[in-house]
Amino acid sequence: MKLHWSPRSPFVRKVMVAAHELGVADRIETVRTVVAMGKPNPALLPDNPLGKIPTLVLADGTALFDSLTICEYLDHLAGGSLFPPPGPLRWRALTDHALGQGLLDMLILWRNEREKPAPHRAWLDSFAEKSQATLDRMERMAPGLAGGFGIGHVTLGCALSYLDFRFADLAWRTGRPALAAWHQTFEARPSVRATAVVDA
Amino acid sequence: MKLHWSPRSPFVRKVMVAAHELGVADRIETVRTVVAMGKPNPALLPDNPLGKIPTLVLADGTALFDSLTICEYLDHLAGGSLFPPPGPLRWRALTDHALGQGLLDMLILWRNEREKPAPHRAWLDSFAEKSQATLDRMERMAPGLAGGFGIGHVTLGCALSYLDFRFADLAWRTGRPALAAWHQTFEARPSVRATAVVDA
Repeated sequence: MKLHWSPRSPFVRKVMVAAHELGVADRIETVRTVVAMGKPNPALLPDNPLGKIPTLVLADGTALFDSLTICEYLDHLAGGSLFPPPGPLRWRALTDHALGQGLLDMLILWRNEREKPAPHRAWLDSFAEKSQATLDRMERMAPGLAGGFGIGHVTLGCALSYLDFRFADLAWRTGRPALAAWHQTFEARPSVRATAVVDA
Repeated sequence: MKLHWSPRSPFVRKVMVAAHELGVADRIETVRTVVAMGKPNPALLPDNPLGKIPTLVLADGTALFDSLTICEYLDHLAGGSLFPPPGPLRWRALTDHALGQGLLDMLILWRNEREKPAPHRAWLDSFAEKSQATLDRMERMAPGLAGGFGIGHVTLGCALSYLDFRFADLAWRTGRPALAAWHQTFEARPSVRATAVVDA
C-alpha cells in the first residue's frame, strides 16, 4: 500500500506512529506528497479530491482517508488494539482522539493565520484561549493516560509534539508537570522515535 | 443525554440526522449553545475545551465529541447500521464520511475567509478548486450511493445541504445531475426534514 506522506504533517505522523505500533510500517510505501493550503497538488487530487494527506492507496487502487480511517484500517489489518470495541472504552478513546485532532486542526489554522500579513486578531486570541483550555484538560487527563495506548494516545501525543515543533513559544509544559511526564513516555516509544520530524 | 446544539451547524445536523434515522432523537435534550470562531463559549468549555459543537453530555456527565464519535455512540446505542463492522464496507463508509466532513471543514474556513476584510486570495482560489474536485468526485459516486444509508451518506448529504444554505452562488447542481438526484432523495428522508435549517 502507498501512503501520500510528508515528513512534517502531524496527521501523517499519527498514521506512521500507529503503523509502527502495529508492526505494519514496513508494508507501507511512503510517497512524498507536498500539499499547501493555497496550492492543491495535482498528483493527489485523483486519490483525494480534498487534497489532504495522509491518503492511503491500497493495492487494488482503493483510496482511504482521513487519518482516523487509515488508523482504524491498519488496526484491523494487524489485529491491533488501538481501537477498543464498542463500549465506554471506545467512546473514551474516540473522544480523546477528537481532542488531539481538534487541537491539531486549530493549531494549523492558527499557524496559517499568524503568518499572514493581516491576521484576524479575534481568531488568534480565541485559538490561544482554546489551546490553553485544551492543554489544561490534558494535564488533568494525564494520570489516566498511563498504562494504556490507543488511538487517543497517538493523537494527543502527536499534538504535543507538534506544539514543540511549531509553537515552542507557547511553552506548554509550564504548569503542566503530569502532561510533560506523560509526553516524555510517549516520545520514548519506538514508534514515536521512528517517526520523529526531520527536515527532508 | 444533553446535546450542545445550534440550528445552523452542519456538524450538529449530522448528529441529529443520525439520531432521527436511529429513532433516538427524542432521548436527546438539545441545548442551544452559541459558538463563534473568535468567541469561545464559557458554558461549553468545561464539556469541550475546544469549544466546538456538537458535544454530547451523557447522564453520568461524560462528554463525547466530535460528531463522528457521537454518531457512532448513537448507532451502537440504537443497534443501528450507520457504521458497518470492520471490513471493506466500513472503510468505504468512513472514507465517504471523511469526504463530506473534509468538504464541510473547508467550506466553513472558506466562508470565514471570504467574509474578512482582507481575504487570502490563494486560499480562496484553493478552496474553490478543491470544492469543485470534491463535488465532481461525488457526482461520480452518486450512482453507488443509492440503496444504502450510512454515516457517509449522512455526512455527504449534510455537506450538500450546507452548500445550498451558505454557498448558493456555487450552483453545485450544474453539470451534476446524478448528485442532484441523490440529494433530492436525501432531502426527502424524514430525518433530514426533521432537522432542516431554520432561523431560531
